[in-house]
Amino acid sequence: MTDTLKEYCRQKVACIDHKLELLLPKQGQYPPVILEAMRYSVFAGGKRMRPVLLMAAADAVNGRGEEYTHVAAGLEMIHTYSLIHDDLPAMDDDDYRRGKPTNHKVYGEAMAILAGDALLTYAFEVMGRQPDVLSDVLLRVIAEIAAAVGPLGMVGGQAMDLFSEGKQIGLQEIEYLHKAKTGALFKASIRAGAMLAGAGEEQLQDLTQYSDYFGLAFQITDDILDVTGNQAELGKPVGSDSKNQKATYVSLYSVDKAKSIAGEAVDGALNTLKFFGPEADILRDLAKYLLSRNN
Amino acid sequence: MTDTLKEYCRQKVACIDHKLELLLPKQGQYPPVILEAMRYSVFAGGKRMRPVLLMAAADAVNGRGEEYTHVAAGLEMIHTYSLIHDDLPAMDDDDYRRGKPTNHKVYGEAMAILAGDALLTYAFEVMGRQPDVLSDVLLRVIAEIAAAVGPLGMVGGQAMDLFSEGKQIGLQEIEYLHKAKTGALFKASIRAGAMLAGAGEEQLQDLTQYSDYFGLAFQITDDILDVTGNQAELGKPVGSDSKNQKATYVSLYSVDKAKSIAGEAVDGALNTLKFFGPEADILRDLAKYLLSRNN
Repeated sequence: MTDTLKEYCRQKVACIDHKLELLLPKQGQYPPVILEAMRYSVFAGGKRMRPVLLMAAADAVNGRGEEYTHVAAGLEMIHTYSLIHDDLPAMDDDDYRRGKPTNHKVYGEAMAILAGDALLTYAFEVMGRQPDVLSDVLLRVIAEIAAAVGPLGMVGGQAMDLFSEGKQIGLQEIEYLHKAKTGALFKASIRAGAMLAGAGEEQLQDLTQYSDYFGLAFQITDDILDVTGNQAELGKPVGSDSKNQKATYVSLYSVDKAKSIAGEAVDGALNTLKFFGPEADILRDLAKYLLSRNN
Repeated sequence: MTDTLKEYCRQKVACIDHKLELLLPKQGQYPPVILEAMRYSVFAGGKRMRPVLLMAAADAVNGRGEEYTHVAAGLEMIHTYSLIHDDLPAMDDDDYRRGKPTNHKVYGEAMAILAGDALLTYAFEVMGRQPDVLSDVLLRVIAEIAAAVGPLGMVGGQAMDLFSEGKQIGLQEIEYLHKAKTGALFKASIRAGAMLAGAGEEQLQDLTQYSDYFGLAFQITDDILDVTGNQAELGKPVGSDSKNQKATYVSLYSVDKAKSIAGEAVDGALNTLKFFGPEADILRDLAKYLLSRNN
């Protein structure tokens, strides 16, 4: 990671953490442990990648990425809800996430389901209250984020993932699964940043293509890390894909071939930014970083 | 139920069912059984009360209730998601709902969690696409619906309900619990209809008060039905509140006293409509109907 990117992420993560702290309800009149359960997982050490991508895309367009923190915080709440539900006993049944006990291990299964539901719902309330953006732009952004994480996006991908466990699936299905399960929210984060910042049609198209390559490179490097990674750095056990007989780029190809496909995807991402100047350097650094990430 | 109300409900239910049929995605390219699981619970015989309330409130203001079917359909999807998650083994662990096997009994626990998540998410996408309404009005409506069903609304009420099972709680807590768990979404449905239809400030205030009385009367009659109701008509076992040691108006008072409080709440609801003419007759009939409902 370049020093510029490191400093950028430090600043944006501080900004989004501050906003999440302000926005997430504290102990209310009655609702008991649910507010605590929501905060537990939101502040369990996430990298805030989706908010950072939103802000970096907005910065590439108008340099005002930090103005869109309501939508950025909403993205992080949605991401957190998806992790809480993925970890449930009925789903992946994980006891640890980022080195900490998962939500249902701390608060019980019923409260973990509700905390996830609450984060997903609250995200839409918070995003709807984003100030200083034209209402019709904000409405389009919210509908697009909802579509990205709904039955034809993230939740659909999760359903397909469950459905295909232990089955032989081909490259086309793997690509579809990843696009839905993780790619769609990355794409929506980047497009949301661009739209909120008032990107023109061509800029929006370029950033959309960037997001496709970014999502692909992210997923392949994720698959590689599950084989070559270090449990302490990852904060989760390695080898779980193979244990769960999940179809991945590595199970389909070799680690070396997967690395080379990831490299091509990053080149593709950089190429989509050719009409942007230095204002898109963070997006460039983020794409290049994927090839060296260790968590 | 008066004939006018019966005919009104028949028309509006047909209208909302048609919209739900159009809006809910059918079998897609890959996402497998999740779309079927969503449809299963949406079309499992709901009374569509929240959409009907939205349309009746809009009709009381501008007579164009049927124009707001995207938001109305979203309300029904949100209500359905809440039922699917409430019925889960980790929550109320119910095998039947409206006389049919619950979602997780048919599709399994993991798919039921995801189908609920998908309906909640998809609701926000659909509501965000409501045509023919000013963007800033629609944004306010969506944020208000999200608030009504979030951690300080419906989900918070559900969390408190779990938390207080088997405990002695007082009237103040019961009232708070019901307001959050069921009242908030009724209120949001009625206010959404009024706001979408362009209600003035005083009309909106009157309809808000109406919704408070309506929600209270609904909850009390619900508690009474759990004691005096007929399982075949209700589509669910009676006596479950007492079995689960849930605090209700009936456990706190007697059935007769609870009936008399419900009657007062309905009078209160009617009184809030005193500045409305016959255009609010459906709202009046709906409130009165609560006293004679058997399911």
